Amino acid sequence: MDKIIGIDVGFSGAIAIINAKDKSIIELMDMPIITTSATELNENVIKEILSDKDVKHVFIEKAQTMPQNGVVASFRYGAGYGVIRGICVGLGVPYSLCHPSTWKKKMMKDMPKEKYSSILRVCQLYPGLVMPRKKDHNKAEALLVGLYGLTCVLENSN
Amino acid sequence: MDKIIGIDVGFSGAIAIINAKDKSIIELMDMPIITTSATELNENVIKEILSDKDVKHVFIEKAQTMPQNGVVASFRYGAGYGVIRGICVGLGVPYSLCHPSTWKKKMMKDMPKEKYSSILRVCQLYPGLVMPRKKDHNKAEALLVGLYGLTCVLENSN
Repeated sequence: MDKIIGIDVGFSGAIAIINAKDKSIIELMDMPIITTSATELNENVIKEILSDKDVKHVFIEKAQTMPQNGVVASFRYGAGYGVIRGICVGLGVPYSLCHPSTWKKKMMKDMPKEKYSSILRVCQLYPGLVMPRKKDHNKAEALLVGLYGLTCVLENSN
Repeated sequence: MDKIIGIDVGFSGAIAIINAKDKSIIELMDMPIITTSATELNENVIKEILSDKDVKHVFIEKAQTMPQNGVVASFRYGAGYGVIRGICVGLGVPYSLCHPSTWKKKMMKDMPKEKYSSILRVCQLYPGLVMPRKKDHNKAEALLVGLYGLTCVLENSN
């Protein structure tokens, strides 16, 4: 079964694994992290997820730092973003970076421009999906990034 | 022939490939980059270098952002740092992060605390090495990070 992956980056990000054929959700998970004195990505767990031989493409939300962030937070956010891209490179899995404005234009058409709209939208698309917690919006975004990639990038390349 | 690698991160960083047995230099190179409208790491070239089956360990200078950097530069520097770590993870090559103060304390003992001292030091250690350009200090640092790792991390772990 071919799988594609959508990733919302950041320590409170998420990973969505999607069946490329019927767009069903295989798994939605929080970003694997390890917290000691500082939070770091759990690199080997992410590697294990992405190294599944059925994974055909990884779609990663293009990350940018926000002007309100400090330099340390920006550096750490960038490093986490880089680690995920680097794991794809090391594994030899093709990846694409999806700019937020691009995937939202396609996947969030006519939805309110609000942080939690992504939860509304995925619940419309997947009637069986239950997302009771506001913090699930990262999982919802990972799922939408993956669906965007599947719909707009992969299908157009055939 | 077992090899170890030292990396000075950043777009103007460098990579040193060292023979783990006799500490001879196999190759010293500038960080592989691609410059379009912005500079990016040439990820697949870096992957090719690190995927040599003889590479036993990668030592990466632990990067931190500088307070004088802006948030965008910090983010981009962090992303490049993350990509290199991620490539190691994806390839399954062990890596270690070496804090500048730690490797310098060991490798730059009694040297002037000045940016270009690293060139002086590697030219002392390798009498055949010629480094005429000031900008070679990144190659010199990559080499010293690799040597530090070989001497202090790997040899002590046996």
